[in-house]
Amino acid sequence: MISKTVKNKLRAILGKENLLDEKEDLICYSYDATTFQFKPELVIFPKTPEQISEILKIANQEKIPVVPRGGGTGLSGGSIPILGGMALVLTRMNKILEIDQENLTALVEPGVITEEFKIIVEKLGLFYPPDPASMKMSTLGGNAAECAGGPHCLKYGVTRDYVLGLEVVLPTGEIIKIGSKVIKNVTGYDLTRLIIGSEGTLGVITKIILKLIPLPENFKTAIASFFTMEDAAKCVSKIIQARILPSTLEFMDHFSIKAVEEYSHLGLPQEAHALLLIEVDGEDTATKIQLNKIKEICKEENVIEFKSASTFEEREKIWEARRAVSPALGKISPLRLNEDVVVPRNKLTELIKETQSISKQYNLEIANFGHAGDGNLHLNILLKSRTPQVMKNAEEALNALYLKVIQMQGAISGEHGIGFLKSKYLSYALKEEQILLMKKIKTIFDPNNILNPGKIFVD
Amino acid sequence: MISKTVKNKLRAILGKENLLDEKEDLICYSYDATTFQFKPELVIFPKTPEQISEILKIANQEKIPVVPRGGGTGLSGGSIPILGGMALVLTRMNKILEIDQENLTALVEPGVITEEFKIIVEKLGLFYPPDPASMKMSTLGGNAAECAGGPHCLKYGVTRDYVLGLEVVLPTGEIIKIGSKVIKNVTGYDLTRLIIGSEGTLGVITKIILKLIPLPENFKTAIASFFTMEDAAKCVSKIIQARILPSTLEFMDHFSIKAVEEYSHLGLPQEAHALLLIEVDGEDTATKIQLNKIKEICKEENVIEFKSASTFEEREKIWEARRAVSPALGKISPLRLNEDVVVPRNKLTELIKETQSISKQYNLEIANFGHAGDGNLHLNILLKSRTPQVMKNAEEALNALYLKVIQMQGAISGEHGIGFLKSKYLSYALKEEQILLMKKIKTIFDPNNILNPGKIFVD
Repeated sequence: MISKTVKNKLRAILGKENLLDEKEDLICYSYDATTFQFKPELVIFPKTPEQISEILKIANQEKIPVVPRGGGTGLSGGSIPILGGMALVLTRMNKILEIDQENLTALVEPGVITEEFKIIVEKLGLFYPPDPASMKMSTLGGNAAECAGGPHCLKYGVTRDYVLGLEVVLPTGEIIKIGSKVIKNVTGYDLTRLIIGSEGTLGVITKIILKLIPLPENFKTAIASFFTMEDAAKCVSKIIQARILPSTLEFMDHFSIKAVEEYSHLGLPQEAHALLLIEVDGEDTATKIQLNKIKEICKEENVIEFKSASTFEEREKIWEARRAVSPALGKISPLRLNEDVVVPRNKLTELIKETQSISKQYNLEIANFGHAGDGNLHLNILLKSRTPQVMKNAEEALNALYLKVIQMQGAISGEHGIGFLKSKYLSYALKEEQILLMKKIKTIFDPNNILNPGKIFVD
Repeated sequence: MISKTVKNKLRAILGKENLLDEKEDLICYSYDATTFQFKPELVIFPKTPEQISEILKIANQEKIPVVPRGGGTGLSGGSIPILGGMALVLTRMNKILEIDQENLTALVEPGVITEEFKIIVEKLGLFYPPDPASMKMSTLGGNAAECAGGPHCLKYGVTRDYVLGLEVVLPTGEIIKIGSKVIKNVTGYDLTRLIIGSEGTLGVITKIILKLIPLPENFKTAIASFFTMEDAAKCVSKIIQARILPSTLEFMDHFSIKAVEEYSHLGLPQEAHALLLIEVDGEDTATKIQLNKIKEICKEENVIEFKSASTFEEREKIWEARRAVSPALGKISPLRLNEDVVVPRNKLTELIKETQSISKQYNLEIANFGHAGDGNLHLNILLKSRTPQVMKNAEEALNALYLKVIQMQGAISGEHGIGFLKSKYLSYALKEEQILLMKKIKTIFDPNNILNPGKIFVD
């Protein structure tokens, strides 16, 4: 329980309009994009690193859990206050402080919305590639804390590859600046990348120096449907072997195609068992040549239909199919588990076959879609109910899935992080020595375990 | 002193042909590419991670320093055994274990020579961009340990951006595998990037999973000379503002131009005070368009001469000028200090002016060259002698330089690392809290401080 005295101290630091403790407010900040819910005791909206520093000093002294939160769009429960304490919401620190067009960098506060930032830099002819599906609501701070991905990562890399430096408030209250406005920097250990993907457990990110690149001149988008997953997978493989690295290479299985068609009537071929959404970008002529080559490859692999977009509207329609997957599956089953495993790209077909056999074995409906180009599978388990038997089956299915993924040299999370949903599976992926090293690092940064406790590690 | 008993144990592990302790052998392994020299007591050439594990367990028990070493091309003294002990040389672990053309990855041992690897993957239409100047002799393991850079980093990023996973032997003997064969992986803290750039102080790298990309279809190379550094800098700025990201954007100052011309008579314009070497790569048409645009920009900024290469021989001649800088300066003064500071790209002119004033103030000859595109300046201080007064002046000059660089939001090392040459300046760049965090991380990995002791930190 956070005492009245502490609340008053916090109110004095933040101003009363930046602290909420009414039940209905607490409920709003007890969720993320998973279906789990744990109420914080207090919701606070700091506006400066100095305020966060003061708050963390108090929390550290009083041993109060502090859970940083951006847009609340996470899919591993990372920003849910599972042990109560304070939800530290960073959405009011949402200024773009600088876009430096000469050095191709930006300095932002953590609460800036990802898509808003992308649109602003694009107007300047610049490009910030990371594009998590939640980018309309997710924040750049949350993206950094989770090392977010997205369809563009195949060609352009993940959030980590675009963070040059950070300002971070440590759980003990110190404000540190790590990295800098330069691409090359080898000054001691890489604390910047240690914070990236640490899921808000090592420090609160209060400023981010981002790397930008020139906006590609043009892009070409196409959608290709196939009778079998194998045909689609062969295309992916041949595209890469033709030394083409598409900016996007997404796929959907039969279940997802049907679901999308029922949901939004886009005219997707119902006989298709696999669908690829392909985008190439770069110089105009180059993209034309690449798209033609891709079309040829698809034909060689018995494509049912290959449609390329020639207008912005056509492109939007293609993307609509991909974007509709998640809501369409959500309509079929609101109780779905959204997975995020990743395997080397050429093992994706094998993994999908495995999910089909898991589906039968545990009597669960599974939809497969995701980033074919980088082997990142967002399979969804569609639960019909939450009865103990169904939940037990789902847990065993996930268990089987993770073991298979590890065996295939993959990872149990590609984009969503470990949070608390996957903490008990961390030992599948990592040896005891590695987990021990990580826990010791956590202790160095956060000796009293106040910052986002209960995440990543089982304790 | 390493006892006879210990030596015998090591010999039993390694085989006698993989252990050297004759004085003349020890001398060979007492250098790197700096001018400093410290003899190890023993030179060992392990061939497996298991051997390294056994050796480190012994070293850990006996508190014997172990200094990992690749090609010995480092420029910060990182692989010099300043406290004696064993030089652990990884050059006999030099196999390319796999090049996976479907997943665009490679699995290599640490002793593979950088350039040899680059050539082999290029024959397969693949590209490993990092290209440190020493790549003919440097090893991929050393590159990973130092997070090596090179001219291509402007467009393609540094070694860190191409390492997906590592096998590492910890100083306490455990063998861990971190990261994996996938681009996206958010499974706990990013130990992979913590090891990258840790200069052999946290673990011995025994395998590396590298990311490869498709080889660009074509490239265009040009050399442009200018009457003033300001003109050249304006060109750099305008090229970036035209949203062109060259694959290389190198420069030399008047002193370097003169030195190269005296050394290799390439016909460089002697009246030039700045020279840019520019390369663009990508699809054929795109590179032509970009090079034309760059030529226009150079004309607008009063270029003296703009020469583009139309044959492989012409390209080689252009690169010869850049590659000759270091040997040409070495001929003028074998006692030179090769610097590696970095500032945001648009502050490079200001930094160069600063070096000119430092040159006057401390009566030292300074040559400036380096990577204009990413603000990484390899200024060389050419010492006429090693008298106490000259050395004192050089030290004060470096001191002034580092302070200026920090003030300009730069870093005291872009590519070479801290090693022991810059350890006393680490506190210029980082706050005490950060250094303390790093030291605590070191202690977690290496409680007895046996692995490359005396590097990065002063203690």
